[in-house]
Amino acid sequence: MAGPGTGYPMECSQTVKRSTGTLYGVGVGPGDPELITLKALRILKSVPVVAWPAPLSGESLARSIAAPHMRDGQVEIPIRMPIEAGVFPSGEVYDEAAQKIAHHLEAERDVAAICEGDPFFYGSFMYLFGRLADRFPIEVIPGITSLTAAAAVLGHPLAARNDTLAVVPAPLEEGVLERRIADCDACVIIKIGRHLRKLRRIIDRLGLLNNAHYVEYATMDQQRTSPLADIMIDSASYFSIVLIHKRGDAWQ
Amino acid sequence: MAGPGTGYPMECSQTVKRSTGTLYGVGVGPGDPELITLKALRILKSVPVVAWPAPLSGESLARSIAAPHMRDGQVEIPIRMPIEAGVFPSGEVYDEAAQKIAHHLEAERDVAAICEGDPFFYGSFMYLFGRLADRFPIEVIPGITSLTAAAAVLGHPLAARNDTLAVVPAPLEEGVLERRIADCDACVIIKIGRHLRKLRRIIDRLGLLNNAHYVEYATMDQQRTSPLADIMIDSASYFSIVLIHKRGDAWQ
Repeated sequence: MAGPGTGYPMECSQTVKRSTGTLYGVGVGPGDPELITLKALRILKSVPVVAWPAPLSGESLARSIAAPHMRDGQVEIPIRMPIEAGVFPSGEVYDEAAQKIAHHLEAERDVAAICEGDPFFYGSFMYLFGRLADRFPIEVIPGITSLTAAAAVLGHPLAARNDTLAVVPAPLEEGVLERRIADCDACVIIKIGRHLRKLRRIIDRLGLLNNAHYVEYATMDQQRTSPLADIMIDSASYFSIVLIHKRGDAWQ
Repeated sequence: MAGPGTGYPMECSQTVKRSTGTLYGVGVGPGDPELITLKALRILKSVPVVAWPAPLSGESLARSIAAPHMRDGQVEIPIRMPIEAGVFPSGEVYDEAAQKIAHHLEAERDVAAICEGDPFFYGSFMYLFGRLADRFPIEVIPGITSLTAAAAVLGHPLAARNDTLAVVPAPLEEGVLERRIADCDACVIIKIGRHLRKLRRIIDRLGLLNNAHYVEYATMDQQRTSPLADIMIDSASYFSIVLIHKRGDAWQ
């Protein structure tokens, strides 16, 4: 026993209690490495272990955003999974990653699990959180989402005054998707991928084609923005987004 | 005349064209000065003029977030307005602020108009944008919103998989507000203030009281989080937010 009234100083008690490392869920933002926060930067530089999500083969976007800020000698844990709109990786991928991360935390090493955008906004970090939150201290560092990044590069406000803003994943069934888009003042459609054709059809049917803007790879080198009406492809990148504002003059 | 084919080098042409300063809309994030981005920091340090929103009397939250990053000698333009949920300042406040900012831009001085959170996410910046975008170059630097900051400090994911997430302002009429909250998978209620009592009544009626969490001053010194069920006050701070997640295990 240690602590107030026991004769042992508090410092001793606190040292004994810290028997594991901390898991940081770090949002690294939408793509531009300058769009990470000072806090994310500090943690990224200080931790001995960095875990990052990646497609089954090829480069990790989250790691490429963080790379300019990482230091030599950090242990890295890749978490590879299918990256496709509406396809979710099996739990085993996260079980295995959580086990590797737990091994470092048990050895009192802090771990930063990074992700594009924000950890708790449709982020893959939450599956690690679900597996580790009951055993280890976890701190989440919020990140700039694709939502506000897309609005910024379009030069078009997202929502104003008493607007209701809906964030809607494109893989939803056509009828549900249509109802969601119809029933709000402003709307952001995410996870578009191969659902672009269905999405265009719905937006056209609702008479909203002239209110819809398309953004791909917002804030990255390969960024592209366009009125949705001019986008003639059937399938979009995973990192694309459509913004719809029905009251375009709400901020006048 | 200058430019390609005129015999003048492009550098000359570009110099001639840049006859005004740039207006930067800079999101400074939810409150913790460490939650601003590297890009916001760079711009904040480099511009000669900083404009900030503030209540009619008292301190500006946006300025207090930016203060540790500002430098001596910057010209400051306070934009004072009523800060209350559902009350919008008169256009004259922004007309006057836009005029002051335009004066600096015309003199080729860059101006950073800062705001809490993100400039295009219910941010007051968009009213300056609406008045100045046709006359001056404008760049928007996205910021961390209260949305993801609140989820981070609660330790509770905002939305996962194919969830529809709705952002709903509390000043909406009771029936509309109830329908908006009922019809989504996850919900964030903003601009609560004196609408807290109405909001609690709706959430209780929908049987969602145990799914609702209250956050006040997220990431700031005076931060407070609580299950909504335990909040007994009738009126909340302007900087409060309620998160509702109907499928609490979506990330397992």
